[in-house]
Amino acid sequence: MSTDIASMVKEAAQAAKAAAGVLRSAGRAPKDRALLAMARLLKEGQAGLLEANAKDVAAAGKAGMAKAMLERLTLTPAKVDAMVQGLREVAALPDPAGSLVESRELANGLKLSKVRVPLGVVGIIYESRPNVTVDAASLCLKSGNATILRGGSEAVNSNVALGAIIQAGLREAGLPEAAVTVIGTPDRAAVNALLKLDSLVDVIIPRGGHGLIRFVLENSSIPVIRHDIGNCHVYVDASADLKMAEDIAFNAKVQRPGVCNAMEHLLVHEKVAKALLPGLFARYRQAGVELRGDAAVQALEKGVKPVAEGEWSEEYLDLIVGAKIVASVDEAIAHINTYGSQHSDAIITADAANAEKFLEQVDSAAVYWNASTRFTDGYEFGLGAEIGISTQKLHARGPMALEELCSVKWVVRGTGQVRG
Amino acid sequence: MSTDIASMVKEAAQAAKAAAGVLRSAGRAPKDRALLAMARLLKEGQAGLLEANAKDVAAAGKAGMAKAMLERLTLTPAKVDAMVQGLREVAALPDPAGSLVESRELANGLKLSKVRVPLGVVGIIYESRPNVTVDAASLCLKSGNATILRGGSEAVNSNVALGAIIQAGLREAGLPEAAVTVIGTPDRAAVNALLKLDSLVDVIIPRGGHGLIRFVLENSSIPVIRHDIGNCHVYVDASADLKMAEDIAFNAKVQRPGVCNAMEHLLVHEKVAKALLPGLFARYRQAGVELRGDAAVQALEKGVKPVAEGEWSEEYLDLIVGAKIVASVDEAIAHINTYGSQHSDAIITADAANAEKFLEQVDSAAVYWNASTRFTDGYEFGLGAEIGISTQKLHARGPMALEELCSVKWVVRGTGQVRG
Repeated sequence: MSTDIASMVKEAAQAAKAAAGVLRSAGRAPKDRALLAMARLLKEGQAGLLEANAKDVAAAGKAGMAKAMLERLTLTPAKVDAMVQGLREVAALPDPAGSLVESRELANGLKLSKVRVPLGVVGIIYESRPNVTVDAASLCLKSGNATILRGGSEAVNSNVALGAIIQAGLREAGLPEAAVTVIGTPDRAAVNALLKLDSLVDVIIPRGGHGLIRFVLENSSIPVIRHDIGNCHVYVDASADLKMAEDIAFNAKVQRPGVCNAMEHLLVHEKVAKALLPGLFARYRQAGVELRGDAAVQALEKGVKPVAEGEWSEEYLDLIVGAKIVASVDEAIAHINTYGSQHSDAIITADAANAEKFLEQVDSAAVYWNASTRFTDGYEFGLGAEIGISTQKLHARGPMALEELCSVKWVVRGTGQVRG
Repeated sequence: MSTDIASMVKEAAQAAKAAAGVLRSAGRAPKDRALLAMARLLKEGQAGLLEANAKDVAAAGKAGMAKAMLERLTLTPAKVDAMVQGLREVAALPDPAGSLVESRELANGLKLSKVRVPLGVVGIIYESRPNVTVDAASLCLKSGNATILRGGSEAVNSNVALGAIIQAGLREAGLPEAAVTVIGTPDRAAVNALLKLDSLVDVIIPRGGHGLIRFVLENSSIPVIRHDIGNCHVYVDASADLKMAEDIAFNAKVQRPGVCNAMEHLLVHEKVAKALLPGLFARYRQAGVELRGDAAVQALEKGVKPVAEGEWSEEYLDLIVGAKIVASVDEAIAHINTYGSQHSDAIITADAANAEKFLEQVDSAAVYWNASTRFTDGYEFGLGAEIGISTQKLHARGPMALEELCSVKWVVRGTGQVRG
């Protein structure tokens, strides 16, 4: 059985590699035609899709899936519209493939161009949200990559239905169906098999919880781009404008607490703790935020729970804040570099020297001076789209957009040059 | 015992991570001072170094190491001078850390800069040549990275001696010794332990044979940048200038056959095979090149050995050429994409349409029109230096220079912006 699954995954990857060869030279037009066809077919096929999704939701409900997860799994006409809109927006973005990174002419007359080319075959392993199927496939297709999608087993009917719509769109545009493959078996053996196909698959992008990401990192012989947790900090320095600090610390925690660029831990300079915290904490309480803190914060404010040692490294992804009082910007930087997840961290200060120190020394994908961490996002940064936020340092760091779904190639034009 | 080694490697990695924090904010001056101090100390310490190296060479000779490998292992005053010169050249190169990749201002007033920052801690696993110790350490230091070096067990005395010189240079410049650590145990357990430290080490660069690279890929939970084999091709098209084709095919094979950008396989359009091959093969024979070919080549030229099927994927790294006659540029492209190693491939043609098709469709790190594959090199490309040639698509492709030893960071400067 699991041998059959391994062969099936291998055949899909071989077909994907062949399709990637077609996409590499297809140019922009058929890719955009396919994306627009998918948008139309998705709206036309909405009833069938919602029916398939209802099966998944019913099975997950029976199996006792938590409410928040069930909500992520459930498709609605509004969510379908958002997917349709997303496909149209991706079609309208510029094509990153073929764009020039740099060019130079050597003394011997050789003309070098470094141009963006698709990565090739991208494997995406993700959890419950079926809209990731469309988001990921559209961004990979736009950048000229073939995609192998392996969603959560609880969404398998939804994903298979979406895969059929996507492949119909590819057919309409004259592109190979294998440009996007949804692996339709819920068997975990399919993931294990996929992760070993390093001669066929160029990169694996896991999207999901920490457990999924660890599993992929430990079992993949294919390069992985990690989209791991966001344990983001806001540090309020001694010289901060306290009204600005309160607004940013409130926004970073409350505006959308379940996402990776939301603030989890608040660091406050001891000189301004008394002036800042009572007002900010009152706003937090009003918004339903649970307050936790170190001993100094607890001494300042009643009803604050303690933060356990391990919690300083954690992502709450919820209306909970953990606050700590520090003696200096250096202590704040050291805390963030020790416990943070290298995602997004902010300093609020009027002191330019402290700000520049923080921006330089905090080793995170995005560092902010006087702004909310919630801006770390491909759309917000003006990159047009994103497939996720990379928390690793290789290849892509921070919002991963179309250009980051490309590799490069050196094109060298000569007139007979040989090496002496 | 192997637990002790694992703890020793972990402690070294923790110290390297702390040193990387110092290097991140050190600026250019102390890094260059350290490199120049190393150059001086290396020359001053030459006698002791050659003594340590002689121990390695004697032991390897006793153990029956092949002559070519022994030559790579053996240090000489000339090789020491080359290392000294290399250190001075790296000191003179611009500092990639802190340089701007792009900047933008958003409608909400946020100012974004994407700047290069060091990767952090780089692990390098390599085989017999001790000069890699100095080359790799100097490029990593220049780009602000801490380095953990694990050379071949047969070079352990040489590498430990080099490590002492490098650390003395770091001390002179006031930088932490742990910025460069040579793992001095020949025990393989040290490699296994290193490959699992993904919370401390940011990237692993293996340099060596295919076996070493497979081992690292299969056992590392740290991202790997692969520097794999170069099975490079020259394709002579129907419209090629045959004098140019002969010179390039000769240069690409003969000028330095033991390196990864040398040509291994020659593809010739059937229309020009008779006009090209006799003259080219005569030059090859004179240079001591062993001729191998497919049936059509064998029919054209006496004394050509057959190429076995598996050989089309192989890197000879020697004075051997495998030639094949093809019917079209498409057949050449398909052959290269099937059997090549995505390193460097050239087309020789006067037909611009065929050339552009080849440059676009051949999926290799460097593609050439009318020039020798031997130019794929960081110095030749004008990048100042190289730590190797990446044959993968993620992060770095082709010559990997100082910029490719960096990651990026988004620096966002605001005036109190929050997300709505």
